[in-house]
Amino acid sequence: MLDVCLLGTGGMMPLPYRWLTSLMVRYNGKSILIDCGEGTQIAMKEKGWSPKPIDVICFTHFHADHISGLPGMFLTMGNAERTEPLLLIGPKGLERVVTALRTIAPELPFEIKFMELSDTQQSIDLGGIKLNAFKVNHNITCYGYSLEVERVGMFDLERAKEQEIPQKYWSRLQKGEVIEAEGITYTPDMVLGAPRKGLKVTYTTDTRPCESIVENAKDSDLFICEGMYGEEDKVKKAKEYKHMTFYEAAELAKRSNVAEMWLTHYSPSLVRPEDYMKKVRKIFPNSHAGKDGKSVELMFQD
Amino acid sequence: MLDVCLLGTGGMMPLPYRWLTSLMVRYNGKSILIDCGEGTQIAMKEKGWSPKPIDVICFTHFHADHISGLPGMFLTMGNAERTEPLLLIGPKGLERVVTALRTIAPELPFEIKFMELSDTQQSIDLGGIKLNAFKVNHNITCYGYSLEVERVGMFDLERAKEQEIPQKYWSRLQKGEVIEAEGITYTPDMVLGAPRKGLKVTYTTDTRPCESIVENAKDSDLFICEGMYGEEDKVKKAKEYKHMTFYEAAELAKRSNVAEMWLTHYSPSLVRPEDYMKKVRKIFPNSHAGKDGKSVELMFQD
Repeated sequence: MLDVCLLGTGGMMPLPYRWLTSLMVRYNGKSILIDCGEGTQIAMKEKGWSPKPIDVICFTHFHADHISGLPGMFLTMGNAERTEPLLLIGPKGLERVVTALRTIAPELPFEIKFMELSDTQQSIDLGGIKLNAFKVNHNITCYGYSLEVERVGMFDLERAKEQEIPQKYWSRLQKGEVIEAEGITYTPDMVLGAPRKGLKVTYTTDTRPCESIVENAKDSDLFICEGMYGEEDKVKKAKEYKHMTFYEAAELAKRSNVAEMWLTHYSPSLVRPEDYMKKVRKIFPNSHAGKDGKSVELMFQD
Repeated sequence: MLDVCLLGTGGMMPLPYRWLTSLMVRYNGKSILIDCGEGTQIAMKEKGWSPKPIDVICFTHFHADHISGLPGMFLTMGNAERTEPLLLIGPKGLERVVTALRTIAPELPFEIKFMELSDTQQSIDLGGIKLNAFKVNHNITCYGYSLEVERVGMFDLERAKEQEIPQKYWSRLQKGEVIEAEGITYTPDMVLGAPRKGLKVTYTTDTRPCESIVENAKDSDLFICEGMYGEEDKVKKAKEYKHMTFYEAAELAKRSNVAEMWLTHYSPSLVRPEDYMKKVRKIFPNSHAGKDGKSVELMFQD
């Protein structure tokens, strides 16, 4: 089960009724946060989720609305007596930017590790979760992220028997162990059927539509995409500031063959995103206007 | 009229139901903000006040809960197309700290000016408002502030006549002009009675009780003081972390002969400050538990 919460849906500045865009994902005891603008720690508390067990914080880019909440988040984690190291992932310059922000949060009881992205496409194993970072098209370097949980095949009794694998190893092999015994190497795939469908969530914001999004969002169970403007005539503005309209996001969802799309990162001038959804759903039917705290528990298919 | 709003009342970390401690004062077209933690710009918007016309931002000290909202505030001011310079006042190191935070807000359409405090006691003329900064006693350098609006005497017809001041100068003198005419210098005090009572607001947070507070808060119309803990047995904790209990704040209010006290900067563990106010009022009757957005229009006495 992948527990996903869109903590906020605002772009540019936090508003009394809208937190800044940020995504939190929990899986198997791990917590991952993507983006941390001013107020993200409050949004998290409002949702009832805790910042303490966050293992990784990813940043799409270094505009303030995506990182200004970091010093406060650090201190709140510190006040909760966190001692486990925290991994930060983001574009080149991450350590420099975070070090500058730590001027007001210099003493923390946990270590901060940095992983700076430099490739156009990068895959990172977060232990049970595969994080794919991909460059998108904004006015500064910006990445989108997809999170994938792969799922091995079911135990295949016939195959195990056919290959004469000793029964005493079945359970360990099924759990992923490689076993050497009497000169023979037994691997998990020897007792498993074809991999089953896993889970995939893709998050991208502050970008024009681009091919890297289509490629990386492909077949996602959930595609969370920026929609800065709902008004169709704001496409010029979207191009100028390197953002998207709702309709451009919907086209991406359609081309990526995702199961569901949530829009986010609304312009402060956009008060009622719902007003535009009817038209958006004509392009991609399973489109939803994201709301602060909107969450879903994505389940493996049986 | 001095328009005062306590935008938030929290200490340490912002909470879903409590913004971080910050004070905004408006007088005669001028706006002054003291402290700007994470979320202060949202608190301001919630109150319906605008960040655009802020002339001065004062900082008590550089713990994150008092300055972490600054990059976002800068950007929101910039997005509102502010071009007037902004004066920042705070302890030594101000420019270094703000420059570091500007890593995520590098481009702004207005100039930022710095005034770093170094004396124990410093008086600054903000044009119509006198700002007194005074060192208090925290675990890093920290200042309290009092804002004073002085008020000249009423026009004194008898005095003006007695001194044979030409009537044509009366109005200009009353408005504060110094006039040289026919070898004589006429000064405003020549047509005015004794100065009338002005207005005074004092704000101090993140400190142990100390004499500089008593001296500077003296006779304030409104004294806004930190009260980190309501529980009497937390005085040890207050001493350790260099904060105050509600009762220590009330003692200061009493000794300073202020008209009214508001408590602020509550510990996140303190859920209902009101619960302790009965005891606080035994020490200083006109004590109030500050609330987010609590405001008052202080009027000149006639």
